[in-house]
Amino acid sequence: MTQHILGIDPGLASLGFGSIHITDNHPELLDYGIIKTAAKTDIGQRLQTIYDDLHELVAAQKPDLVAIEKLFFYRMGNTILVAQARGVVLLVLAQYQLPIVEFTPAQIKQALTGYGAADKQAVQEAVTRELNLEVLPRPDDAADALAIAITAWFQQ
Amino acid sequence: MTQHILGIDPGLASLGFGSIHITDNHPELLDYGIIKTAAKTDIGQRLQTIYDDLHELVAAQKPDLVAIEKLFFYRMGNTILVAQARGVVLLVLAQYQLPIVEFTPAQIKQALTGYGAADKQAVQEAVTRELNLEVLPRPDDAADALAIAITAWFQQ
Repeated sequence: MTQHILGIDPGLASLGFGSIHITDNHPELLDYGIIKTAAKTDIGQRLQTIYDDLHELVAAQKPDLVAIEKLFFYRMGNTILVAQARGVVLLVLAQYQLPIVEFTPAQIKQALTGYGAADKQAVQEAVTRELNLEVLPRPDDAADALAIAITAWFQQ
Repeated sequence: MTQHILGIDPGLASLGFGSIHITDNHPELLDYGIIKTAAKTDIGQRLQTIYDDLHELVAAQKPDLVAIEKLFFYRMGNTILVAQARGVVLLVLAQYQLPIVEFTPAQIKQALTGYGAADKQAVQEAVTRELNLEVLPRPDDAADALAIAITAWFQQ
Protein backbone atom coordinates (compact mmCIF):
# COMPACT_ATOMS: atom_id res chain seq x y z
CA MET A 1 0.00 0.00 0.00
CA THR A 2 1.24 3.45 -0.89
CA GLN A 3 -0.26 6.67 0.29
CA HIS A 4 0.60 10.33 0.33
CA ILE A 5 -0.77 12.31 3.30
CA LEU A 6 -0.56 16.10 3.50
CA GLY A 7 -0.86 17.67 6.96
CA ILE A 8 -1.94 21.29 7.37
CA ASP A 9 -1.69 23.50 10.45
CA PRO A 10 -3.97 26.41 9.48
CA GLY A 11 -2.84 29.96 10.22
CA LEU A 12 -2.93 33.42 8.70
CA ALA A 13 0.60 34.72 9.37
CA SER A 14 2.12 31.25 8.99
CA LEU A 15 0.35 28.17 7.64
CA GLY A 16 2.33 24.98 8.21
CA PHE A 17 2.33 22.07 5.79
CA GLY A 18 4.08 18.74 5.86
CA SER A 19 3.65 15.66 3.75
CA ILE A 20 4.59 12.05 4.24
CA HIS A 21 4.56 9.02 2.02
CA ILE A 22 3.50 5.65 3.40
CA THR A 23 5.13 2.60 1.84
CA ASP A 24 4.76 -0.85 3.41
CA ASN A 25 3.31 0.76 6.53
CA HIS A 26 6.42 2.90 6.93
CA PRO A 27 6.22 6.72 6.76
CA GLU A 28 8.80 8.76 4.88
CA LEU A 29 9.20 12.53 4.87
CA LEU A 30 8.33 14.08 1.51
CA ASP A 31 8.25 17.80 2.13
CA TYR A 32 7.46 20.43 4.74
CA GLY A 33 7.40 24.20 5.12
CA ILE A 34 5.18 27.19 5.73
CA ILE A 35 3.10 29.63 3.70
CA LYS A 36 3.79 33.09 5.15
CA THR A 37 1.75 36.25 4.76
CA ALA A 38 2.85 39.70 5.90
CA ALA A 39 0.89 41.34 8.73
CA LYS A 40 1.07 44.73 7.03
CA THR A 41 -0.78 43.62 3.88
CA ASP A 42 -4.57 43.64 4.04
CA ILE A 43 -6.56 40.56 4.98
CA GLY A 44 -7.90 39.98 1.45
CA GLN A 45 -4.41 39.91 -0.05
CA ARG A 46 -3.19 37.57 2.69
CA LEU A 47 -6.05 35.15 2.01
CA GLN A 48 -5.31 35.35 -1.70
CA THR A 49 -1.67 34.41 -1.04
CA ILE A 50 -2.83 31.37 0.95
CA TYR A 51 -5.30 30.44 -1.81
CA ASP A 52 -2.71 30.73 -4.60
CA ASP A 53 0.18 29.08 -2.74
CA LEU A 54 -1.96 26.22 -1.46
CA HIS A 55 -3.36 25.63 -4.95
CA GLU A 56 0.20 25.38 -6.24
CA LEU A 57 1.22 23.05 -3.42
CA VAL A 58 -1.73 20.68 -3.80
CA ALA A 59 -1.43 20.62 -7.61
CA ALA A 60 2.26 19.71 -7.30
CA GLN A 61 1.91 17.18 -4.47
CA LYS A 62 -1.34 15.45 -5.45
CA PRO A 63 -1.97 14.05 -1.94
CA ASP A 64 -4.37 11.14 -1.42
CA LEU A 65 -5.56 12.47 1.92
CA VAL A 66 -5.32 15.80 3.77
CA ALA A 67 -5.22 16.03 7.56
CA ILE A 68 -6.02 19.39 9.12
CA GLU A 69 -6.10 20.69 12.66
CA LYS A 70 -9.51 21.45 14.17
CA LEU A 71 -9.92 24.97 15.42
CA PHE A 72 -11.04 25.86 18.92
CA PHE A 73 -11.28 29.05 20.93
CA TYR A 74 -7.94 28.39 22.58
CA ARG A 75 -6.39 31.59 21.25
CA MET A 76 -9.30 34.01 21.51
CA GLY A 77 -7.96 37.14 19.85
CA ASN A 78 -6.57 35.19 16.97
CA THR A 79 -9.34 32.69 16.34
CA ILE A 80 -11.39 34.69 13.83
CA LEU A 81 -8.31 35.45 11.71
CA VAL A 82 -7.22 31.81 11.77
CA ALA A 83 -10.78 30.62 11.00
CA GLN A 84 -10.92 32.93 7.97
CA ALA A 85 -7.68 31.42 6.68
CA ARG A 86 -8.98 27.92 7.46
CA GLY A 87 -12.08 28.64 5.36
CA VAL A 88 -9.84 29.36 2.37
CA VAL A 89 -7.88 26.14 3.04
CA LEU A 90 -11.09 24.08 3.14
CA LEU A 91 -12.23 25.76 -0.08
CA VAL A 92 -9.03 24.82 -1.94
CA LEU A 93 -9.21 21.22 -0.70
CA ALA A 94 -12.85 21.02 -1.84
CA GLN A 95 -11.89 22.39 -5.26
CA TYR A 96 -9.55 19.38 -5.62
CA GLN A 97 -12.23 17.08 -4.11
CA LEU A 98 -9.69 15.82 -1.60
CA PRO A 99 -10.80 13.69 1.34
CA ILE A 100 -9.96 15.38 4.65
CA VAL A 101 -9.67 14.23 8.24
CA GLU A 102 -9.62 16.61 11.19
CA PHE A 103 -7.95 16.27 14.57
CA THR A 104 -7.94 18.37 17.71
CA PRO A 105 -4.58 19.44 19.19
CA ALA A 106 -5.16 16.97 22.05
CA GLN A 107 -5.77 14.10 19.61
CA ILE A 108 -2.52 14.91 17.79
CA LYS A 109 -0.51 15.06 21.02
CA GLN A 110 -2.11 11.83 22.23
CA ALA A 111 -1.36 10.04 18.95
CA LEU A 112 2.28 11.12 18.80
CA THR A 113 3.31 10.90 22.46
CA GLY A 114 0.58 8.93 24.21
CA TYR A 115 -0.22 12.02 26.28
CA GLY A 116 -2.90 14.55 25.25
CA ALA A 117 -1.27 17.47 27.06
CA ALA A 118 2.29 16.87 25.82
CA ASP A 119 4.43 19.95 25.12
CA LYS A 120 5.63 21.10 21.69
CA GLN A 121 9.12 19.67 22.20
CA ALA A 122 7.80 16.17 22.97
CA VAL A 123 5.60 16.20 19.86
CA GLN A 124 8.48 17.39 17.67
CA GLU A 125 10.77 14.70 19.04
CA ALA A 126 8.13 12.08 18.21
CA VAL A 127 7.87 13.46 14.65
CA THR A 128 11.67 13.29 14.31
CA ARG A 129 11.71 9.70 15.56
CA GLU A 130 8.76 8.50 13.43
CA LEU A 131 10.27 9.95 10.26
CA ASN A 132 13.87 8.97 11.10
CA LEU A 133 15.08 12.56 10.74
CA GLU A 134 18.51 13.79 11.80
CA VAL A 135 17.22 17.06 13.24
CA LEU A 136 13.89 18.48 14.46
CA PRO A 137 11.91 19.90 11.54
CA ARG A 138 11.53 23.70 11.68
CA PRO A 139 9.69 26.06 11.96
CA ASP A 140 7.16 24.92 14.57
CA ASP A 141 4.15 25.24 12.26
CA ALA A 142 5.73 22.90 9.71
CA ALA A 143 6.61 20.39 12.45
CA ASP A 144 3.00 20.59 13.69
CA ALA A 145 1.76 19.88 10.16
CA LEU A 146 3.94 16.76 10.00
CA ALA A 147 2.53 15.68 13.37
CA ILE A 148 -0.99 16.05 11.94
CA ALA A 149 -0.08 13.94 8.88
CA ILE A 150 1.42 11.23 11.11
CA THR A 151 -1.72 11.25 13.27
CA ALA A 152 -3.80 10.59 10.14
CA TRP A 153 -1.57 7.66 9.25
CA PHE A 154 -1.83 6.18 12.78
CA GLN A 155 -5.61 6.39 12.67
CA GLN A 156 -6.05 4.50 9.43
CA MET B 1 -21.97 61.08 -8.65
CA THR B 2 -23.05 57.51 -9.24
CA GLN B 3 -22.01 54.60 -7.12
CA HIS B 4 -22.94 50.99 -6.66
CA ILE B 5 -22.48 49.60 -3.13
CA LEU B 6 -22.83 45.90 -2.34
CA GLY B 7 -23.54 44.98 1.29
CA ILE B 8 -22.71 41.52 2.60
CA ASP B 9 -23.85 39.86 5.83
CA PRO B 10 -21.46 36.87 6.04
CA GLY B 11 -22.86 33.50 7.05
CA LEU B 12 -22.43 29.83 6.25
CA ALA B 13 -26.04 28.57 6.13
CA SER B 14 -27.31 31.87 4.74
CA LEU B 15 -25.16 34.71 3.41
CA GLY B 16 -27.13 37.91 2.85
CA PHE B 17 -26.39 40.34 0.05
CA GLY B 18 -28.02 43.60 -0.93
CA SER B 19 -26.94 46.27 -3.36
CA ILE B 20 -27.88 49.88 -3.78
CA HIS B 21 -27.17 52.47 -6.40
CA ILE B 22 -26.45 56.06 -5.37
CA THR B 23 -27.49 58.74 -7.82
CA ASP B 24 -27.49 62.43 -6.84
CA ASN B 25 -27.01 61.43 -3.23
CA HIS B 26 -30.15 59.31 -3.31
CA PRO B 27 -30.01 55.52 -2.76
CA GLU B 28 -32.01 53.13 -4.90
CA LEU B 29 -32.48 49.42 -4.36
CA LEU B 30 -30.79 47.32 -7.02
CA ASP B 31 -30.96 43.76 -5.76
CA TYR B 32 -31.00 41.65 -2.63
CA GLY B 33 -31.13 38.02 -1.60
CA ILE B 34 -29.24 35.22 0.09
CA ILE B 35 -26.75 32.51 -0.82
CA LYS B 36 -27.90 29.37 0.97
CA THR B 37 -25.91 26.22 1.72
CA ALA B 38 -27.36 23.00 3.10
CA ALA B 39 -26.29 21.93 6.59
CA LYS B 40 -26.10 18.30 5.53
CA THR B 41 -23.41 18.90 2.88
CA ASP B 42 -19.81 18.99 4.08
CA ILE B 43 -18.09 22.24 4.99
CA GLY B 44 -15.81 22.24 1.93
CA GLN B 45 -18.75 21.95 -0.46
CA ARG B 46 -20.61 24.70 1.37
CA LEU B 47 -17.63 27.04 1.10
CA GLN B 48 -17.32 26.17 -2.58
CA THR B 49 -20.97 27.12 -3.13
CA ILE B 50 -20.34 30.48 -1.46
CA TYR B 51 -17.18 30.97 -3.54
CA ASP B 52 -18.90 30.14 -6.84
CA ASP B 53 -22.14 32.02 -6.18
CA LEU B 54 -20.37 35.12 -4.87
CA HIS B 55 -18.07 35.12 -7.89
CA GLU B 56 -21.11 35.05 -10.14
CA LEU B 57 -22.82 37.81 -8.16
CA VAL B 58 -19.82 40.15 -8.12
CA ALA B 59 -19.06 39.55 -11.80
CA ALA B 60 -22.67 40.38 -12.69
CA GLN B 61 -23.05 43.38 -10.37
CA LYS B 62 -19.61 45.00 -10.69
CA PRO B 63 -19.94 47.00 -7.44
CA ASP B 64 -17.69 50.02 -6.81
CA LEU B 65 -17.51 49.31 -3.09
CA VAL B 66 -18.35 46.38 -0.83
CA ALA B 67 -19.48 46.81 2.77
CA ILE B 68 -19.23 43.79 5.05
CA GLU B 69 -20.16 43.13 8.64
CA LYS B 70 -17.32 42.72 11.12
CA LEU B 71 -17.38 39.49 13.04
CA PHE B 72 -17.28 39.24 16.82
CA PHE B 73 -17.69 36.47 19.34
CA TYR B 74 -21.31 37.30 19.84
CA ARG B 75 -22.54 33.89 18.71
CA MET B 76 -19.91 31.63 20.22
CA GLY B 77 -20.77 28.23 18.80
CA ASN B 78 -21.26 29.63 15.36
CA THR B 79 -18.36 32.03 15.10
CA ILE B 80 -15.76 29.67 13.65
CA LEU B 81 -18.15 28.49 10.93
CA VAL B 82 -19.12 32.06 10.04
CA ALA B 83 -15.47 33.18 10.11
CA GLN B 84 -14.55 30.37 7.69
CA ALA B 85 -17.27 31.57 5.31
CA ARG B 86 -16.15 35.19 5.78
CA GLY B 87 -12.60 34.17 4.79
CA VAL B 88 -13.96 32.89 1.47
CA VAL B 89 -15.94 36.13 1.00
CA LEU B 90 -12.84 38.27 1.62
CA LEU B 91 -10.89 36.06 -0.82
CA VAL B 92 -13.42 36.58 -3.62
CA LEU B 93 -13.51 40.36 -3.04
CA ALA B 94 -9.68 40.44 -3.14
CA GLN B 95 -9.71 38.47 -6.39
CA TYR B 96 -11.77 41.32 -7.91
CA GLN B 97 -9.55 43.90 -6.15
CA LEU B 98 -12.66 45.52 -4.70
CA PRO B 99 -12.35 48.15 -1.98
CA ILE B 100 -14.10 47.06 1.20
CA VAL B 101 -15.35 48.79 4.31
CA GLU B 102 -16.27 46.96 7.51
CA PHE B 103 -18.80 47.84 10.18
CA THR B 104 -19.72 46.31 13.51
CA PRO B 105 -23.38 45.43 14.18
CA ALA B 106 -23.55 48.38 16.61
CA GLN B 107 -22.24 50.80 13.97
CA ILE B 108 -24.87 49.60 11.50
CA LYS B 109 -27.70 49.97 14.02
CA GLN B 110 -26.42 53.39 15.05
CA ALA B 111 -26.18 54.58 11.43
CA LEU B 112 -29.67 53.37 10.47
CA THR B 113 -31.67 54.22 13.60
CA GLY B 114 -29.46 56.54 15.68
CA TYR B 115 -29.34 53.86 18.38
CA GLY B 116 -26.54 51.26 18.59
CA ALA B 117 -28.67 48.64 20.36
CA ALA B 118 -31.74 48.93 18.10
CA ASP B 119 -33.69 45.74 17.39
CA LYS B 120 -33.91 43.99 14.01
CA GLN B 121 -37.38 45.39 13.29
CA ALA B 122 -36.25 49.02 13.76
CA VAL B 123 -33.28 48.49 11.44
CA GLN B 124 -35.48 46.87 8.78
CA GLU B 125 -37.98 49.70 8.97
CA ALA B 126 -35.15 52.19 8.47
CA VAL B 127 -33.96 50.23 5.41
CA THR B 128 -37.49 50.24 4.01
CA ARG B 129 -37.78 54.00 4.55
CA GLU B 130 -34.34 54.88 3.14
CA LEU B 131 -34.95 52.87 -0.02
CA ASN B 132 -38.61 53.87 -0.40
CA LEU B 133 -39.77 50.26 -0.43
CA GLU B 134 -43.38 49.13 -0.16
CA VAL B 135 -42.62 46.20 2.13
CA LEU B 136 -39.81 45.11 4.44
CA PRO B 137 -37.14 43.24 2.47
CA ARG B 138 -36.90 39.53 3.36
CA PRO B 139 -35.28 37.32 4.54
CA ASP B 140 -33.54 38.94 7.52
CA ASP B 141 -30.01 38.31 6.22
CA ALA B 142 -30.78 40.13 2.97
CA ALA B 143 -32.32 43.06 4.88
CA ASP B 144 -29.19 43.17 7.09
CA ALA B 145 -27.01 43.27 3.97
CA LEU B 146 -28.98 46.26 2.67
CA ALA B 147 -28.53 47.95 6.07
CA ILE B 148 -24.77 47.41 5.74
CA ALA B 149 -24.74 48.94 2.23
CA ILE B 150 -26.73 51.96 3.45
CA THR B 151 -24.31 52.41 6.37
CA ALA B 152 -21.43 52.55 3.87
CA TRP B 153 -23.26 55.22 1.92
CA PHE B 154 -23.96 57.30 5.07
CA GLN B 155 -20.29 57.17 6.04
CA GLN B 156 -18.92 58.49 2.78
